[in-house]
Amino acid sequence: MNGAFSLRAPQLADDLFALTRSLPLVCPHGHVPVELLADSRDGVEWTDPAALFVTGDHYVLRMLYSLGVSPEALGMVGGDGGPVGPLAAPREVWRTFCTYRDAFAGTPTGYWVRRTLQSVFGLAGWPTPDRADETFDLLDERLRATSPLQLLREQRVQVIATTDEAAADLGPHRSLGSAGRAPIVLPTFRPDAVSDLSSPTWVQAVRELGAVCDRDITDLDGLLDALWERRTAFRRAGATASDHGMSVPATGRLTPHQARTLVERRLRGHVDVADAVRFSGHMLMEMAAMAAADGLVMQLHAGVHRDHHHRFVRRYGPATGSDIPVAVDFTSGLAPLLDEFGAKPSFRLVLFTLDESTYSRELAPLAGHYPAVRLGPPWWFLDSARAIRRYLDAVVETAGVANLAGFNDDTRNVATVAARHELWRSSVAAWTADAVADGLVEVGQAERLVTALAYGLAVDTYRLQEQVDGTAHTHKDDDGR
Amino acid sequence: MNGAFSLRAPQLADDLFALTRSLPLVCPHGHVPVELLADSRDGVEWTDPAALFVTGDHYVLRMLYSLGVSPEALGMVGGDGGPVGPLAAPREVWRTFCTYRDAFAGTPTGYWVRRTLQSVFGLAGWPTPDRADETFDLLDERLRATSPLQLLREQRVQVIATTDEAAADLGPHRSLGSAGRAPIVLPTFRPDAVSDLSSPTWVQAVRELGAVCDRDITDLDGLLDALWERRTAFRRAGATASDHGMSVPATGRLTPHQARTLVERRLRGHVDVADAVRFSGHMLMEMAAMAAADGLVMQLHAGVHRDHHHRFVRRYGPATGSDIPVAVDFTSGLAPLLDEFGAKPSFRLVLFTLDESTYSRELAPLAGHYPAVRLGPPWWFLDSARAIRRYLDAVVETAGVANLAGFNDDTRNVATVAARHELWRSSVAAWTADAVADGLVEVGQAERLVTALAYGLAVDTYRLQEQVDGTAHTHKDDDGR
Amino acid sequence: MNGAFSLRAPQLADDLFALTRSLPLVCPHGHVPVELLADSRDGVEWTDPAALFVTGDHYVLRMLYSLGVSPEALGMVGGDGGPVGPLAAPREVWRTFCTYRDAFAGTPTGYWVRRTLQSVFGLAGWPTPDRADETFDLLDERLRATSPLQLLREQRVQVIATTDEAAADLGPHRSLGSAGRAPIVLPTFRPDAVSDLSSPTWVQAVRELGAVCDRDITDLDGLLDALWERRTAFRRAGATASDHGMSVPATGRLTPHQARTLVERRLRGHVDVADAVRFSGHMLMEMAAMAAADGLVMQLHAGVHRDHHHRFVRRYGPATGSDIPVAVDFTSGLAPLLDEFGAKPSFRLVLFTLDESTYSRELAPLAGHYPAVRLGPPWWFLDSARAIRRYLDAVVETAGVANLAGFNDDTRNVATVAARHELWRSSVAAWTADAVADGLVEVGQAERLVTALAYGLAVDTYRLQEQVDGTAHTHKDDDGR
Repeated sequence: MNGAFSLRAPQLADDLFALTRSLPLVCPHGHVPVELLADSRDGVEWTDPAALFVTGDHYVLRMLYSLGVSPEALGMVGGDGGPVGPLAAPREVWRTFCTYRDAFAGTPTGYWVRRTLQSVFGLAGWPTPDRADETFDLLDERLRATSPLQLLREQRVQVIATTDEAAADLGPHRSLGSAGRAPIVLPTFRPDAVSDLSSPTWVQAVRELGAVCDRDITDLDGLLDALWERRTAFRRAGATASDHGMSVPATGRLTPHQARTLVERRLRGHVDVADAVRFSGHMLMEMAAMAAADGLVMQLHAGVHRDHHHRFVRRYGPATGSDIPVAVDFTSGLAPLLDEFGAKPSFRLVLFTLDESTYSRELAPLAGHYPAVRLGPPWWFLDSARAIRRYLDAVVETAGVANLAGFNDDTRNVATVAARHELWRSSVAAWTADAVADGLVEVGQAERLVTALAYGLAVDTYRLQEQVDGTAHTHKDDDGR
Repeated sequence: MNGAFSLRAPQLADDLFALTRSLPLVCPHGHVPVELLADSRDGVEWTDPAALFVTGDHYVLRMLYSLGVSPEALGMVGGDGGPVGPLAAPREVWRTFCTYRDAFAGTPTGYWVRRTLQSVFGLAGWPTPDRADETFDLLDERLRATSPLQLLREQRVQVIATTDEAAADLGPHRSLGSAGRAPIVLPTFRPDAVSDLSSPTWVQAVRELGAVCDRDITDLDGLLDALWERRTAFRRAGATASDHGMSVPATGRLTPHQARTLVERRLRGHVDVADAVRFSGHMLMEMAAMAAADGLVMQLHAGVHRDHHHRFVRRYGPATGSDIPVAVDFTSGLAPLLDEFGAKPSFRLVLFTLDESTYSRELAPLAGHYPAVRLGPPWWFLDSARAIRRYLDAVVETAGVANLAGFNDDTRNVATVAARHELWRSSVAAWTADAVADGLVEVGQAERLVTALAYGLAVDTYRLQEQVDGTAHTHKDDDGR
Repeated sequence: MNGAFSLRAPQLADDLFALTRSLPLVCPHGHVPVELLADSRDGVEWTDPAALFVTGDHYVLRMLYSLGVSPEALGMVGGDGGPVGPLAAPREVWRTFCTYRDAFAGTPTGYWVRRTLQSVFGLAGWPTPDRADETFDLLDERLRATSPLQLLREQRVQVIATTDEAAADLGPHRSLGSAGRAPIVLPTFRPDAVSDLSSPTWVQAVRELGAVCDRDITDLDGLLDALWERRTAFRRAGATASDHGMSVPATGRLTPHQARTLVERRLRGHVDVADAVRFSGHMLMEMAAMAAADGLVMQLHAGVHRDHHHRFVRRYGPATGSDIPVAVDFTSGLAPLLDEFGAKPSFRLVLFTLDESTYSRELAPLAGHYPAVRLGPPWWFLDSARAIRRYLDAVVETAGVANLAGFNDDTRNVATVAARHELWRSSVAAWTADAVADGLVEVGQAERLVTALAYGLAVDTYRLQEQVDGTAHTHKDDDGR
């Protein structure tokens, strides 16, 4: 990527981006399954080009589906385990994908795929349809000859965090930890399944949580004890953060009696949506109290209407690309939580949004006051070059750079990590060069700001200093760099 | 227009814009009255410069009114048919207009008027006050020597759609159709007057609809039958689309009993606002079902508080420039409709908004998932150079270009059609050149994207391929091009 | 500042900005305490560098607090009059401030402080920590040798308005007025304390208002009479405007009985929040009626959740930097007020927002229709270079330049006035140069637009023509310019 620098201050942007090239990658939030990383898979068939770039990527699936491609032609298995119609073979899926190059023009996916094919796999770019078979074979061979962990290593990933249910088996993380090779793989504690009383699988999730803690959870106290126990286990397995997703970011304490009663009612049957929202807000208070005690960084991802297209979800399963954002009110929603915990020295809250109108109106003012708050990078539908610029434009003026959380790549795809960081870093360099040109940033500050945004803030926000200090040496051993 | 290219990638922007100059104009949504086009009006006094550029243009009226010019000085007739005070003559209106050149600096109206005066009427630009009389005479003479249809032809309009009530007489469209000369003039089916139970003229509108269908409409079934019959008549007269306007874009089915009861109550008297909103949402479901059956493209224009200034509207009539947008929730509002129809092969929904915060938050994610959804171009208060850039920046990264609907000029003024397309096309060219410079679009894709945005997507979205194929020949006959 | 001109049209931007340098400053809205200006303070210790730039500036306090600096280390006295812990001496506060230079990179505060230190105090820029003591002494000496009024005079401030409670003693304004030296200091009538029934100090504020009017206020009529009397006193002391702040900008008339009853209930005890909001909306109608009669320009600052961090406010007092904006609905909220007063010739309403999504959606359309409405400049969290560009981009296309209110610096800090105007003016120049380059503004219009935005619109909006005409001469006497 060099295009981003044909801006007003091209030379400075170029120099600033060059500066970031020597920095390793920290990935404190993402969705690579730990199972993929845990086994030594060299030589094992762990994926294929279609699975890696199409069938496994909900950004790609949704775009092709929106343009009339059937889910089956993209290799999507039906929701109840079997495909709805005849399922395309990976090679066919890849052929289809190659014909849709223009559909991704101007999208971050288009950038990530093109740059990954170039820099990780050595292709000239997005393959034209007539080269679909040839490139499929080439990629397939490359994938067979490497492992997910090796791909991350080649991209200079220093630390990567996975996202894991409260009841997750932490064995893979522990064995990866004891192997002592880069990248360091950390779990992230995500207790949504047991916090959301409106989830149809809540009882099952609570049962699984009890099982992993060797106890029966029969009330709220049992649930909270189990969560605290699991937080401890996660921290021992290296976790430095928890993650919390919800539609409405409301917080506030119920009375102990109210909270206990809701758990009891849900264990016996159902509670209504309003009560579930209130309970979820109460659980966030409890999680914040635990975070203030154990120091796990609390991440909040709010404002998504999950599985908007019910008919589609019934056939193809949840989390298949029909989640649609909604407007969010952080100011009122977070007031109780921030009033109680926002100034606690060990508490840290990282906020993410899909509602850009909250950047300057709510998020930057909150981060610019509360010591605990940092702003997460542009998330999901906003992880693109233009949206990164809009984010920096909207939040830095009020929150400054030091209240930001740096970058998360948020990916499921181990091959595109570097391309995602590259888009962020080049956008940050271009933005900073413009700010210097506008007299808003002093020349002497530009290098420090870019380095912080590209690397240091993620390390600091997620409390990863010790981990990255430990890998400096390891990395040298691995790569001879 | 060439200024737009003093951007980062001026040469490419210039080349891309040049590319669009050879493309004819398709106008799938607008408000030119069909009566204006229907008669052969050469030599007939169909308008004058003040009526064309001032009194008939609510963008101009509202701006001049906001700056203290009285409606009477702008030629506005009072709401009940007579002027409130002495009414300025067209020449006086034009003189006033000429003194307000700076008021329109930086507005799209300023651009359209200036460019139209230059390229359609051969003036040097917006007239200075001392040249008001001279230019009035010159324009007046030009207007007497031409007709609305001729003006459209000279601007290379290939297809133009009008917007017509459900009960509209389609005779003018049919006679224009049989004339066989460019531009093709198509009706658009707009049933708002009979869908909105809160409208004071609902009973009258239903009566008129019944009359045109030769039946008495006495219940919901009668209403739906009449609407289906009219859709068929519209399609036979060339319509490819319907249009639906509302304040709150809520959708959802009432039970048949509830829906029938509301119609009966309204026929006898009134229903409250909440019930009217629910009925309107139910009617959108019915309209979507009909659209999935007959293939008329469904346009949704949502989020306007109509006639905000009651006192003004009582004196000068509705739709005179006091409509003010409101925040909109498409995610929840459209969920029922999209869940049911969003994946139907023949259904297509084009969404328009005046709430820019929905671009990246709701509209692009909806278009980037549902096969049926396309995003309409920036509408009304957003039809300007900067807002076009914001739109492309905000939606392409998630929805891609192929999920957009291209351009609609949405005009009432037959003279400014080309200037409106020119502003869109030059903005699109500049945006694309920047995206190439930023490495977000490949050089080889730029021409295809610009051509699609400037022309192809409008044809494809509104299912006008057959029509434009038919006119290619006609146009050549007409113009010798 | 010259960086802002490394834009697309650098030479024109440079020329346009140069044009503004000869214009004096008008400051129609701000928070400099009149007491600071009233006495002749030459040689008196009225402030010190830490108080001026840190302890007295809530923008700076909030940023440093958000980064973990304790309020005591910033010199903040506790809410009940005494410091919570040991209080840092001014010199220590200044040392701390000097170490946080990077924290303000990219923020307007960073720009204002740096430029003020340079152009008002002759420093090289933001001091490095090793020069903290030296610069403290230098600034301290400079401050002892000047007065607030002298600082304003050196910055070429022609007129400055303070913001004053309804019960304020107008003596300082009157004595400043009779002194006859620039700048002219005007009061602004702010009756919030007696309009908000939910305020815990409402009864006390009403009592004080009664006292200053020599009467007992025992009912609504008494309150309204006192307000009218005070408006008259304010006008006689030079006021041309009132100011009204609220969280929700709802307006609408209560019945006389309802309004009277609410006042009686509040005099005896409490009313609930919903009733307080309704009463506040009623009082806005009453204030608008008075404004239409006496011609005071009505300013509306809406959409802030005040004192969001209760625990902090309990310790350090209100208005100490924990106010957080919320989403606002001007379209519905202002409908009753604008329908009644929006076209009254002598009524003028200046609207401010912290919710940028309302710029294009609500505010520009309102200003582009109602003769009474002008849009205030970007406020508070939005008073930065990028946000100024976003504002102009979003509002000019619909409202034009002539419906804007020019600039307010809104400052409490007498030293940074010029730097704030400089940031606005350079941003306006750069924006206008870009608009010319884009073909949206004609070359010949650029100078007029920039002059209007930099100076003329503020004078005109706030009805200050007579005042600035009067000072032209005075200024010459003072400065020899």
